[in-house]
Amino acid sequence: MCIKREIPLGHFQARSQQLPALPPRALSTGLAPKEEPEASVPAAMLRRQLLAWPAWLFRGPPGPRGACALGAEGRPVGPLARRGCCSAPGTPEVPLTRERYPVRRLPFSTVSEQDLAAFERIVPGGVVTDPEALQAPNVDWMRTLRGSSKVLLRPRTSEEVSHILRHCHERNLAVNPQGGNTGMVGGSVPVFDEIILSTARMNQILSFHSVSGILVCQAGCVLEELSRYVEERDFIMPLDLGAKGSCHIGGNVATNAGGLRFLRYGSLRGTVLGLEVVLANGTILDCLTSLRKDNTGYDLKQLFIGSEGTLGVITAVSILCPPKPRAVNVAFLGCPGFAEVLQTFSTCKGMLGEILSAFEFMDAVCMQLVGRHLHLASPVQESAFYVLIETSGSNAGHDAEKLGSFLEHALGSGLVTDGTMATDQTKVKMLWALRERITEALSRDGYVYKYDLSLPLERLYDIVTDVRARLGPHAKHVVGYGHLGDGNLHLNVTAEAFSASLLGALEPHVYEWTARQQGSVSAEHGVGFRKRDVLGYSKPPEALQLMQQLKALLDPKGILNPYKMLPSQA
Amino acid sequence: MCIKREIPLGHFQARSQQLPALPPRALSTGLAPKEEPEASVPAAMLRRQLLAWPAWLFRGPPGPRGACALGAEGRPVGPLARRGCCSAPGTPEVPLTRERYPVRRLPFSTVSEQDLAAFERIVPGGVVTDPEALQAPNVDWMRTLRGSSKVLLRPRTSEEVSHILRHCHERNLAVNPQGGNTGMVGGSVPVFDEIILSTARMNQILSFHSVSGILVCQAGCVLEELSRYVEERDFIMPLDLGAKGSCHIGGNVATNAGGLRFLRYGSLRGTVLGLEVVLANGTILDCLTSLRKDNTGYDLKQLFIGSEGTLGVITAVSILCPPKPRAVNVAFLGCPGFAEVLQTFSTCKGMLGEILSAFEFMDAVCMQLVGRHLHLASPVQESAFYVLIETSGSNAGHDAEKLGSFLEHALGSGLVTDGTMATDQTKVKMLWALRERITEALSRDGYVYKYDLSLPLERLYDIVTDVRARLGPHAKHVVGYGHLGDGNLHLNVTAEAFSASLLGALEPHVYEWTARQQGSVSAEHGVGFRKRDVLGYSKPPEALQLMQQLKALLDPKGILNPYKMLPSQA
Repeated sequence: MCIKREIPLGHFQARSQQLPALPPRALSTGLAPKEEPEASVPAAMLRRQLLAWPAWLFRGPPGPRGACALGAEGRPVGPLARRGCCSAPGTPEVPLTRERYPVRRLPFSTVSEQDLAAFERIVPGGVVTDPEALQAPNVDWMRTLRGSSKVLLRPRTSEEVSHILRHCHERNLAVNPQGGNTGMVGGSVPVFDEIILSTARMNQILSFHSVSGILVCQAGCVLEELSRYVEERDFIMPLDLGAKGSCHIGGNVATNAGGLRFLRYGSLRGTVLGLEVVLANGTILDCLTSLRKDNTGYDLKQLFIGSEGTLGVITAVSILCPPKPRAVNVAFLGCPGFAEVLQTFSTCKGMLGEILSAFEFMDAVCMQLVGRHLHLASPVQESAFYVLIETSGSNAGHDAEKLGSFLEHALGSGLVTDGTMATDQTKVKMLWALRERITEALSRDGYVYKYDLSLPLERLYDIVTDVRARLGPHAKHVVGYGHLGDGNLHLNVTAEAFSASLLGALEPHVYEWTARQQGSVSAEHGVGFRKRDVLGYSKPPEALQLMQQLKALLDPKGILNPYKMLPSQA
Repeated sequence: MCIKREIPLGHFQARSQQLPALPPRALSTGLAPKEEPEASVPAAMLRRQLLAWPAWLFRGPPGPRGACALGAEGRPVGPLARRGCCSAPGTPEVPLTRERYPVRRLPFSTVSEQDLAAFERIVPGGVVTDPEALQAPNVDWMRTLRGSSKVLLRPRTSEEVSHILRHCHERNLAVNPQGGNTGMVGGSVPVFDEIILSTARMNQILSFHSVSGILVCQAGCVLEELSRYVEERDFIMPLDLGAKGSCHIGGNVATNAGGLRFLRYGSLRGTVLGLEVVLANGTILDCLTSLRKDNTGYDLKQLFIGSEGTLGVITAVSILCPPKPRAVNVAFLGCPGFAEVLQTFSTCKGMLGEILSAFEFMDAVCMQLVGRHLHLASPVQESAFYVLIETSGSNAGHDAEKLGSFLEHALGSGLVTDGTMATDQTKVKMLWALRERITEALSRDGYVYKYDLSLPLERLYDIVTDVRARLGPHAKHVVGYGHLGDGNLHLNVTAEAFSASLLGALEPHVYEWTARQQGSVSAEHGVGFRKRDVLGYSKPPEALQLMQQLKALLDPKGILNPYKMLPSQA
């Protein structure tokens, strides 16, 4: 009853009149009746109101543009998805990186017939030289970089990787390790004719411990497949990201991917327990332990987490999976301003505490683009900002009560003007799709300039406003979204096509702005080819020098993923 | 009512007759009455029964032995506590490390009058050469190692540390960084005449962000003081350990200390956001960022976390503090066997989920020693094993209900034969003291052989049984306790005095046993001087070689904490 007094009830009433009520099944929280706290009636009432699911969330099937298949979760699947399914056949060819950017080939050898014969001996049937087959792995996900590799190798074992690298090291051949090729910074495609070393066939699960949740697998396992595997065993992967259907766990670790569960389960630097890595000279470094604690010397695996294949090739991963939460709730809310988004986050942290597992935000333009290009409609009334809150916990009743109290407060105090909530897995995924598919919607909008920044929360959205004003009509759209809970903004700018003058208006402005806030110019996407010359905005010269020294120590010939990660001038 | 049927009620009744009931205040959970779930009556009843606090937990004040002051939390405080307060004046002098162990001084320079004058210019008033004052910092906490340093320096700033190291590097003078000198592996005391570089005066808090909980402070801040500071601001430190009253945060990070909150908040590799480090040649490496996500290049700070001062001297730390939980409950339980301990853990993880913040265990001998030497009595009936479970959450009612259900189940199914529970801060700390002060009790029992192992859970206690049988009457006591939730066993053996034959019976046996289980021979204590030659049991030769290469890269003259961390033979 108290809620009816505090919430702008008219709105919720209107919605529940307008839409068919969900069947009782959909209201289920998976909680045994005896555990339903009797005291929580008001929260339960609120929950029922919020759960009224707008049937018009999805206006229709995805449009015919492109050849993408859409998976059960509304994300593109299949081979095209690997490189941005939105580029249908007939899309203009991606310019060669070496022609678009001022980069000079380093004096590596070129692959000879003898090399190919040697590779064929190492990985029989795993040497790809067909130009057609090499097109896709030469182009990055965003279709803005293109290498000209003539060879792709598909080893199955660490020993094969070792033999390959030993050969390449001796012959001074450059190597570009490649997982799912879903990176955002051009770290996974060759710049010139580097040999592509694909982990696609290294996709075996090596062990899983059903009590501890420790998974050991080869580097080429696809994240979504691992998720499915561990979820069947009542665990979840500690990371989740939009590219899960294609990305490889080895690539995730090499990138130190953040993603959607970072807020709750932390960085891969904590959840990765061990790695097997093949060094540049072919040495297999076995740090594939499955121990939560191990202080026997320097934690060498940390060198390879986030080093994007420039110090070694990750061949196997040991990772700690958290228990699958018994209850997952998602609330999707509209906020009138960014100040309210921040206050909602603060309130949320206090009231949801340990069950808060994600706090994502997107601005109104993101929602418009998701609607326009992907035909997804907002489940809540038009707002300046939208927030997606996920809770994961062990007791559905408790979680619903906490979330109910929070929503009651947020609606009552005007932080949030409208909201919807889901417990049912399918609907949870549909709400998530609004947030996860922004990248895809942006790709369909045109050429995308992408910035992935860490900023102090209180300044997080200022850069979006600033850039929008700065570019005016020169940009098609300027949007801000991201992992607010981690202080991580994705600032994206779309335009009809690549333009050097627009780039000039964006850079170094965005980086300088970020540096003034002591932010990071790459929060989670990494450095790759694209960001290697902007590290100085976030790292002092002493740090860059030490990076160079580490590279020289571990890969003295520089054959591993050259032209990536390290500043070109240093 | 159902609980009365399921729990061995007689025991609880007997106890509540025997002991005065706690005043209602002590039963408070800090929860506003309106939030008390009406449905949780049975759990609440159980809680009330369990909360009956045994007044005889503390039989009396600590005995007169030694000169220890005991702090409010029952842990020794003051300067003596720093090095094991149990060694009263008059205790035989600790033998010099160089005389007891086969170690040869490396060809470093010795400190000259000119060096002292230079140091005096760098840190005016911060050069200690008084032999009396140098006694304590030359001896380790366990009083089994003694160096013969003639100089201790007490800088206040990173710049002073930089000048000191630049001088030492030029002059080829060895340096032993020292924080609170509470390490367990002899990493914090000199072996020969290394200059002791103390962080004691680098104890300033540099900033604290009241929304994000990010604390930036100098390396010499004492952990307990930081805890107090952030707790006043509604946050907690992400780590807690028995030595908190003396240990420095810089030392914690250099050791990659685990401790009592690891299960919940994870490793320092995740919670430390940034470091400032002075390299061997005096270069200040500023990686002191305060960002949750930062993928701008190699994560250099990871090199220094857990490297025990051998690669650089940590001078400042940026660390993410979790919000202070609104409710903390501790249950102390007796289990009839180790199988039941494991099953209790498994049940606990499922039923307490996200609020479980610690799962510690100790065996019956630990409890006997804590009783004998520290006059602490068990709050539960005599059992083969004891388990301490802590929950930390945002809603006292929910947490109590979860814990209540769990305890009901554990008692009902015979996993646990007796238990007590505390919510009140003072009593929570008294229960924790039983676990935290085991180390102290062991020190009072005699010479202690300490092993800190990571092992697969199902084999965790087997090594204790094995060693007990192996040593028979040659050992005074063989005990096992530790952070079961992290797979971390502390195996300790006490004897009247150090004996080479007992050591011979223990080593390499314990290490070989651990290696056969793919365990770690140092879970959280680190390597220091004591463990440097056993790394090979947990690390392959390729890893040891890379460690040596990293050491050579960062400290080519080897002046930083020599004779530590790296194998002596390599």
